[in-house]
Amino acid sequence: MVRVLRRRQSACSNHGGTHQNPLVQGAGPVPEVNNAERQGIDGREPMTTTPNTLTIEALTAEAFRPFGDVIEASDAAHHFTINQGFAERYHDLAQVDTAEGGHTVVSLFKALPRRFPLAITVMERHLLGSQAFVALAPVPFLVVVAPPGDAPGPQGIRCFLAGPGQGVNYARGTWHHPLIALDAPGDFLVIDRAGPACEVDCEEVALAHGALWLVRGR
Amino acid sequence: MVRVLRRRQSACSNHGGTHQNPLVQGAGPVPEVNNAERQGIDGREPMTTTPNTLTIEALTAEAFRPFGDVIEASDAAHHFTINQGFAERYHDLAQVDTAEGGHTVVSLFKALPRRFPLAITVMERHLLGSQAFVALAPVPFLVVVAPPGDAPGPQGIRCFLAGPGQGVNYARGTWHHPLIALDAPGDFLVIDRAGPACEVDCEEVALAHGALWLVRGR
Repeated sequence: MVRVLRRRQSACSNHGGTHQNPLVQGAGPVPEVNNAERQGIDGREPMTTTPNTLTIEALTAEAFRPFGDVIEASDAAHHFTINQGFAERYHDLAQVDTAEGGHTVVSLFKALPRRFPLAITVMERHLLGSQAFVALAPVPFLVVVAPPGDAPGPQGIRCFLAGPGQGVNYARGTWHHPLIALDAPGDFLVIDRAGPACEVDCEEVALAHGALWLVRGR
Repeated sequence: MVRVLRRRQSACSNHGGTHQNPLVQGAGPVPEVNNAERQGIDGREPMTTTPNTLTIEALTAEAFRPFGDVIEASDAAHHFTINQGFAERYHDLAQVDTAEGGHTVVSLFKALPRRFPLAITVMERHLLGSQAFVALAPVPFLVVVAPPGDAPGPQGIRCFLAGPGQGVNYARGTWHHPLIALDAPGDFLVIDRAGPACEVDCEEVALAHGALWLVRGR
């Protein structure tokens, strides 16, 4: 069902090099959007639900449980008052997983916004660790995931809209699309894993069934 | 020089209870501010440098090195392009330290802003782990620290202004004041440690020499 594009080495050797052209989506024709099918998640961003487009779902801890954690200051979290009353701590919101001798790494991503319609053509996973994303401004972003296990088919891929104040932590092995920032360049704090050596920690696959589309209204 | 107020248990038993009154600073008279001594760090917040007030310094990686890491997307960091050109990764910006069987914990603090002049009367340290703070909005906050080792005296305490886009990671054992948010309530991502049991992981001391003051202009 999928073609493995590459197995990347860990970040210590993944220096990237020059920027590729972020305008090239390279995934065939853009699907037509039926206005009658438009629906909004956040009240201002209509989405389509044509067969080859992804439905964009609200992000809740329950809905996201198969994929990892939602990082948010929810009353459902264990929380308590500290700092002489000047702070409320929402405690232990993400299961940071750095298997097999790895350690926690804190990084910043400076992300460019995507253009829509956006073709989802690849997914990736980290077999040795979790990966968390938290926006450093109260802005939404999109989270495209599929459960751990076999490489994702079109039925298993889901898309969530992380609202302002919500982050996510992908559990080890969860398939996910690279970060999808919206509207403007933005900074994200990322918490993931590095190992003692440059072992393989990222597998990327192309979706053999063709692109799934993410569509936003104007 | 200092009086140990208490050794707190780790967060698993530190539930805090009810809010204390955040308006009570309880540290004696407010020092007079000599307008001629006012100086600004960020161009809009004049500060004083009278003997019992702390000078507020710009936060740089070099100045903060004795205390830990500055988390920022600096050209001095190891950075590289990822996600098909849609993100630049500033990699491994904080030494996350979870000694003696601990593990990394990700939490959110919802913080209330402090009132100024602010009396610095207590400092705390974590002997078993580092602790990082990153604001979830592009806002400044204040960082009051003293080097690891003996409990801090007035000469060893320094204050830094973390600008928008800057976070900090206190190295294990660094003395620090609880979070000082400015201007408005704000959310912070916190990365620290939990242990396998509720061992002591926070020591808090009162400054026996009396309060140091943080003063902002109006």
